[in-house]
Amino acid sequence: MPAFRLTLAYDGTGFEGWQSQSRGSARTVQGEVESALRRLSGGERVALCAAGRTDSGVHALGQVVSFSLDRGIQAGDLLRALNGMLPHDVRVLEAALAPESFHARRSARSKLYRYLLDTGPLQLPTRRPWAGHTPWRLDEARVREAAGLYIGRHDFASVASAGGSALTTIRTVTRSEARFLEPEAPGPGPTLLYEVEADGFLRRMVRSLVGGLVAAGRGAVSVADLRRALEARDRRAWPPPAEARGLALVRVDYPPEALVLR
Amino acid sequence: MPAFRLTLAYDGTGFEGWQSQSRGSARTVQGEVESALRRLSGGERVALCAAGRTDSGVHALGQVVSFSLDRGIQAGDLLRALNGMLPHDVRVLEAALAPESFHARRSARSKLYRYLLDTGPLQLPTRRPWAGHTPWRLDEARVREAAGLYIGRHDFASVASAGGSALTTIRTVTRSEARFLEPEAPGPGPTLLYEVEADGFLRRMVRSLVGGLVAAGRGAVSVADLRRALEARDRRAWPPPAEARGLALVRVDYPPEALVLR
Repeated sequence: MPAFRLTLAYDGTGFEGWQSQSRGSARTVQGEVESALRRLSGGERVALCAAGRTDSGVHALGQVVSFSLDRGIQAGDLLRALNGMLPHDVRVLEAALAPESFHARRSARSKLYRYLLDTGPLQLPTRRPWAGHTPWRLDEARVREAAGLYIGRHDFASVASAGGSALTTIRTVTRSEARFLEPEAPGPGPTLLYEVEADGFLRRMVRSLVGGLVAAGRGAVSVADLRRALEARDRRAWPPPAEARGLALVRVDYPPEALVLR
Repeated sequence: MPAFRLTLAYDGTGFEGWQSQSRGSARTVQGEVESALRRLSGGERVALCAAGRTDSGVHALGQVVSFSLDRGIQAGDLLRALNGMLPHDVRVLEAALAPESFHARRSARSKLYRYLLDTGPLQLPTRRPWAGHTPWRLDEARVREAAGLYIGRHDFASVASAGGSALTTIRTVTRSEARFLEPEAPGPGPTLLYEVEADGFLRRMVRSLVGGLVAAGRGAVSVADLRRALEARDRRAWPPPAEARGLALVRVDYPPEALVLR
């Protein structure tokens, strides 16, 4: 059975997240792609595995999924056929044959997420689908210092939502960088661009990490308080999470040997 | 009667353009703002005049409108009240008292429009609401050369849609610049960012100008052909217009004396 790897981009606005619901009526990215693959393969049920199970409203610029098909098809034909059948809010950027052992989530070495947060008294309507919004003015130095706290191997229990299926809440964050972009029009304030890379993420972890940056940046908590809240391993100690719409899964990295066809 | 000037930003996706239709059922930006002003002023009918009557699907980062109210209100209170009542896809960026003689369209000295066009085999779904798309690879030198043709005082009859109300099709373009931005993700090609400033624009003029850039850039016509098509003052000679969704009204400029309160 040939195994495939797809790189997907989607606008999360019109989806109730990646994962198909057991009730089945919600529009999900997984549901759209599986349904297109089923039509393509003549009715075969295809089970997709995604690197990141993005929540409702979360976008992707480089989600990776894996699956097997009963019959052979050229990767380039698969890409064109899927893009012909899928709705415009999901696109296949890349399709490739994968080793049978390849698993989009378990084979991943790291994932990179991006969060855009517009600040200031109002948000440009054209930014709203891709950026969260806070009216507070954020102190750049404190936001950067807070972002630095997350780097390294930590128990991230304080920023994991209930209901996650992870066996451990220990993760290693290899990159956690905040910078501010100039506003696109007069009136709105600067935009916080936050990028975080780790070997794995807990449920709603990135949105909670951003919630911590906002709380520190606006002075609701000190950076020292935030460090204690992280060390407390208790999610009741943590500031509220940022909205889903500012979040995008940018990239998933794999060790080269995971992608090599034997 | 105090006169006001508002600067508005909107996401054109959910609107059938700026202008209220006589049939009245379509959702328009003018309709939303007039309805909010009517509620604010206790039932008074307010007639809005906009600098640019943007088409269905066209966005604004700095639309300017003018109107008069029967009763006095501080400009800052007006801004806050309107943003409290308006839907999230329209925001008031600025509100100011204006001279009674101020007219958002007739007082304008120039307007700046921006067009974003993604190129390459596919378009990122997250870009789709704000950028048009063409699968063709565009030659940068030819696009820039074509953009240069538009600069100056010309009869733009070739790029005016039927149904416009302008008395003359002569306009002066003071800026017409094309550049290419790097793609945001692997797969898609570069994005054409086109900015055009003029003392006024005919109906669908910018979208037609962009259509000319695309035709020249992909080699469907030569730049010399495009020049002849412009000089022909015949819209049947012109390449098809670009899609509405890539277009945004960025800014409207006024001579300082038009804004001075006496």
